[in-house]
Formats: sequence, structure tokens, C-alpha cells
Amino acid sequence: MVERNSDIARYQADYLFVDIARRKERLLQEQPDAKLISLGIGDTTEPIPDMIIHSFVEQAKQLGTTKGYRGYGAALGDPSLRKKIANILYQDRISSDDIFISDGSKCDLGRLQFLFGSHSSLAIQDPSYPAYVAASVMSGKTGAYNTDNGQYRNITYLPCRPENAFFPDLEILPETDLIYICSPNNPTGTVLTHAQLQKLVKMARERGAFIIFDSAYAGFIRDSSLPKSIYEIEGAQDVAIELGSFSKTAGFTGVRLGWTVIPKQLCFDDGTPVQNDWSKIVSTFFNGASNIAQAGGLAILSDEGITASQSLCDLYLENANILREAIESKNYTCFGGENAPYLWVDIKGEPSWKLFDKLLKKGHLVTTPGAGFGPAGEGFLRLSAFGRRVNIIEAAQRLKEIL
Amino acid sequence: MVERNSDIARYQADYLFVDIARRKERLLQEQPDAKLISLGIGDTTEPIPDMIIHSFVEQAKQLGTTKGYRGYGAALGDPSLRKKIANILYQDRISSDDIFISDGSKCDLGRLQFLFGSHSSLAIQDPSYPAYVAASVMSGKTGAYNTDNGQYRNITYLPCRPENAFFPDLEILPETDLIYICSPNNPTGTVLTHAQLQKLVKMARERGAFIIFDSAYAGFIRDSSLPKSIYEIEGAQDVAIELGSFSKTAGFTGVRLGWTVIPKQLCFDDGTPVQNDWSKIVSTFFNGASNIAQAGGLAILSDEGITASQSLCDLYLENANILREAIESKNYTCFGGENAPYLWVDIKGEPSWKLFDKLLKKGHLVTTPGAGFGPAGEGFLRLSAFGRRVNIIEAAQRLKEIL
Repeated sequence: MVERNSDIARYQADYLFVDIARRKERLLQEQPDAKLISLGIGDTTEPIPDMIIHSFVEQAKQLGTTKGYRGYGAALGDPSLRKKIANILYQDRISSDDIFISDGSKCDLGRLQFLFGSHSSLAIQDPSYPAYVAASVMSGKTGAYNTDNGQYRNITYLPCRPENAFFPDLEILPETDLIYICSPNNPTGTVLTHAQLQKLVKMARERGAFIIFDSAYAGFIRDSSLPKSIYEIEGAQDVAIELGSFSKTAGFTGVRLGWTVIPKQLCFDDGTPVQNDWSKIVSTFFNGASNIAQAGGLAILSDEGITASQSLCDLYLENANILREAIESKNYTCFGGENAPYLWVDIKGEPSWKLFDKLLKKGHLVTTPGAGFGPAGEGFLRLSAFGRRVNIIEAAQRLKEIL
Repeated sequence: MVERNSDIARYQADYLFVDIARRKERLLQEQPDAKLISLGIGDTTEPIPDMIIHSFVEQAKQLGTTKGYRGYGAALGDPSLRKKIANILYQDRISSDDIFISDGSKCDLGRLQFLFGSHSSLAIQDPSYPAYVAASVMSGKTGAYNTDNGQYRNITYLPCRPENAFFPDLEILPETDLIYICSPNNPTGTVLTHAQLQKLVKMARERGAFIIFDSAYAGFIRDSSLPKSIYEIEGAQDVAIELGSFSKTAGFTGVRLGWTVIPKQLCFDDGTPVQNDWSKIVSTFFNGASNIAQAGGLAILSDEGITASQSLCDLYLENANILREAIESKNYTCFGGENAPYLWVDIKGEPSWKLFDKLLKKGHLVTTPGAGFGPAGEGFLRLSAFGRRVNIIEAAQRLKEIL
């Protein structure tokens, strides 16, 4: 008989949003007429701008012609898209051959697990996007789940709370190979400053650690003093991998397109460029993102596309503002929402699953309990600002009534 | 300093087709005017049928409308596509909730590595599609490379040669958790019969092994007595996972769409359904295939789409026939090509990389040396029948001149 993989068994929880979906279904069984509004999963709701759609259509039509047909694309991604990302999103700080196109950050997060051995030591922001912990557990990098503190062994959880300006205390960090950092942050909606990232890069350089920097929400940054990429920090290219995505900034959640930056300067202890191993992994476990999606990526990075995707992000940021006003009117403190599509509400010590259930049952609002993002998320609730405006206005009203 | 992952380091070779691409580039540097024809990588060359293109265009346009926009799809795949695959491709032998949509088999081959622990024992057909070995090595399931026999330790290589009708000798198989089987086979182009698959399933049931059955080329089977799926064999649902793909049968190599079948009957030693763990893995390391690609998948499985994709496959099979005639006219024996898009040429004891280089330099033909598919592939050359007809005719001519 084939033995069950203990690494998978170890990950006990359902993936957070699967759990939430189940509770939602249960509510709908009890109250079939409930008009649910989702402020839960960070799923885009606005149509994709016309000029990007046009690029999909044109690329699709090409595939139907003898002249325009293309089979496998480059496993590492369309060279012109890699160039455009380097140029537009990194102001050529990063070379295009350091950019690897993917079908989304979550998929590359999986492939990243192959890059690092199961003995790698890890530090992860707490709260955090649950996939970092899940991926680490399932790839055998952690020990058992400790029910007392809600943590997996061999992960250093880095509490990020209002008290420390959502920046981990690096002084107490033990020897660590990999540090996951997300900014603009999911779930707290906060953005790390240049000064904070400088400290982080300095620490990583001194201690020989790698930073895995998730910049999926960079397109939401409106405060021009805030860094959109870890590579705005000098020396980061020697210590950081960055994940990027078109999902949230251009409505590509269902289209699937992202990228990973692995600078050629980044090397393992034996001098092997990390890029070499990444190419092996990508050639074996991937075959390129869909060519139709990649054509859309090029359109996003045209002058017209940049303006259109900025408007999309602005619309979600206005949603965040509407929700913030509702919450603050009830004397709750909330973070984020100004340079990120998430609000992180301090719920005054109430257990977050309890408030989640209350808002679901009484307000027919789907939110995300802070505890779902890690032990330090307890006492907070995440509100996603993705949603149609009419629903956001209605949700704000319901929040005012129930909170 | 972060340690290099020894599992990745252990995989010494470049991925086969990366190596070939490099030799091709070198030739083009030496002979810039060479009109290369590829009989190498199995990459589709015919345009995608109009009605499938139409489905891409319609889906893309929907994404540009408020009403038709969709964000994240179901991580496990569009339910209607899962149903259609179950119905059309498995005649409802398999339930739709046992079918998981992917962005291609290679990507799911990566995710499958998480499903099984690194202690799993493996058996792989020799020759075989190189990604099975590469994925096993890079996920830490194997020992060191043995330069003497060209094999990695902890993999049982199952020689498949004309002498054993390309079916492994199951009598000598040691205790094994996972057996990779590909039929129609890449690279040999041969198809396993019902009787052969029955033996395989019987063995797996008796010994508690799992079969990973790659059916990417099932759409090329024209002999109706041959099985297109492992699930045509009674009892296979208890022991087999099947990988499927639209890449080759509908020209989706660049569009990216496939599926994995994990029957709910398939269980680990502790009784856990494999499907449960697969759902965890897919929710963590994947976010669904592109919605535009999935719309195309539905079109492929319509009545009109089925006819169109059969015609596509027929065209490649006719190519195979043209190449076969050329080869046989020079008194070479070749296998495959009747129910698969590959020809496996017995090159009469010549080293396969030597003949590869000769055909490249003298004939400007890119082929694939049998040795690239494993030690038992030595002495053979794989010819891919994917190509434009005009090129195939020209290639057949060149083969006649050089062989």
C-alpha cells in the first residue's frame, strides 16, 4: 500500500477560503434568500478594460491562422513581455532575463518550494497570506502543528501588529534561510517604508538569508514615497526574490498571469546562481503561461493599459474608503486601505471567527476572520475592497447597523 | 548563506529539449542560412480550429463586460468542463468530481510530486518522457546519478523495447509505490493493449502500487481495439491516476489546458482518499487554469470540436506515414506513428546523439536522440510528426538522402 505523505497530512486546516466558502454554503442552506455580499476573498469584480480584451481577441484569432499560430512558447515567458515588465515595472533596475513569467504567484509559490530543500529554516509574517505557511508545511519544511499556539514548528512567526508598525522585530529573529514578506500587505493592507525595507535587506545581507518578497498589490500604492518593489532598496538584488502579479491590478484573477524575479546576483552558498536552479525547475514543472494571457500582459503595460489598470485600482481604493468611513463611524480603528485593497479592522478583542459568523448570519456579509491569517491576526477582521460599488455601499450600511 | 538544494543539484542534465535547442542555436550560428526543419520537440504546428477560436473570443469579450466578468474560477476547474470531460472522454466511467482541470500535464506532474513523500519508490518506463525522471529527482525521491548506467538510484528503470513489445517485465519489478506508464507512448509511439494494461492493473492491485498513467496522446488512437484510458480496465480506479491534455490533440500547447483524474476510490494505506490530499495541494499551489483556455476546452468537446480535433490529429498521423515511408525505404525499422504522433526508428546500433548531430549538420533536421529518453532509448531516434505538411515532405526527402 502506498503511504500517505506525512507532510500533506500535517497541514490540518482546510485552506482558509475553502473553510469560509463552506460556512457561506451552510448559511445559504439555512437562509436561501439571503443576499450575500462578499468582503471576503480578494477577488476582482470589475470588467477587464477594453484594450486588454482586444489584445486577447487578437491573439486568439492569430492562433486560428497558419501564419499566426504558435505552439509552445518560451518556458520562461515571452521575451517581449519580460522586457516590458523590466522596463515599465522595474525601470530597468532589473534585467529582463531575471524575470520569469508565470500563470500566477500561487503557482510559482509552489515551484519555489522545490528550489529550497526541506531543511530550510523559515520566518513568516504573522498575520500572513495563508499559502506561505501551507506551502511550507506541504513541502516538508516544517514540524508538527502546535495546538497551544496555533503555530507549526520550524517556522518563526514574526508578529506584525499596530504596536510595531506592522514591521517584524528583526533583533529577535533566529538564524533563518527564508523570510516571506508581503508589501502592500495581505491581510493588513499596510505598506512597508523604504527605511523598513532597508533594515530588512541589511539584515538579510549580513546574515545570508533570502527574502521572498510578494508585491502582488504594488499597483495599489498611491503614496509615491512608498517602495513598490524590494529592488528599490540598494543591495536587494543579492538577497531577494520578488513575486509579481497581474491578478489584482488588471482583473486577471481568472485569466492567470504573474511573474517571479530572480536576480542573477542571487547565489546559493556554493556560488550557484539561484537562477540556474530556477530554470531547471521551470523547464520541468511548467510550460509557460497561456499565450493569450501573455498577450494581455503586454497590453496592460502599454501607455493606455497602464492608465486603465490604475483606474481599476483607484476604483477599489475608493471602495476601501467607503468601508473605512462606515467602520470608523462606529469607533473602530482600522488600518490599510489607502495603498492596498484591504482594511484591517481592530475588533476590540472580540474573537474574529465569532464576529465573522455574526456578520455572516445577521448582515449576510462575508468577511475574513483575522485568526485565519495566523495567530497574531486574532482580534482583527479583514475586509476586502474588491466588489461592485453598489454592493460596497450596501455592505457599508449593513456594517454600520451591525457593528 | 542559504544552502543549495541537493535534490536540484542532483539533476545534472539539462532538460533534454533545452539541450537540443542549444545545439540548434549553435548550428544556426555556424550556418545562419540553414533552413532547419524540426522533427524534434512534439510541438503542434496547425492552427486551432475556428470554432474553438470563436469560444476564446467570446469568453474574452465576456470578461470585458460587467455582466460577464468572472474573477477566480473554481480551483478544481469549471464544473461544466469537468462534466464534459467525464462524459465525452470517459463515457462517464469516471465521475466529473474525480476530474481536476489543470494548465497542462507538466504542471500537474509538478504538483503530483507533493502528493507523494520523498521516500516513495518509483518505477519508470525506459525510454520515457524525461520530465518523469526530472520531477522525481528534483523532488528528492531519488538517489545519485550513476554515470555507469545512466540511471538515478531508487528509480527502477523498466526497459521497453521491441523484444518485449514495449511492455515492461512486471515479474522482475521490486516493491514499488509509483509506476509511471505512458500510452500512447512518448517517445516510442506504441500503444499498450487491453491485455497489457490488465496485467499492469492486476499487478498494481496485488502489490498495492499506484499507476500514474499519462494519456496525453489518447486522441491519436485510431485502432478502436486499443484502450484510450486506463479506466477502460476493470479495477483501475482503485490504483490509477491519469493525466490528460488538450495540448497535442487540439493545438493547445501554448494555450495550456489539461486535467488529472484522481478517482475517489484511490486511497492511501491509512484509508485517506488521495483526492482529499490532492484538493489541499491544488488549493495551495494552483488557482485554476485560465478561464479563456477552459472555454476553449468546452468547445473542443462539442460535436463540431470533436470532429475538428480528430481531423487535426489525422493530419499529424498522415505526416507520420510520410516520414515512415521515407525511413522504411532506406531499410530502417520503425515503430509507432499509427496511433501516436511519434516514430521510433531503430538506427542499427549507431549512437543516437551521433545520428542526431549528423542529421542536424548535414540535413538541417532537428530530431530527438533516443538516449535523451533514458538508457534503453540508445540505438533509436524519435521523429515527431508535428509539422507543416510542406516541411514534412521536405524532411522525408532529406532523410532519404542522408540515411
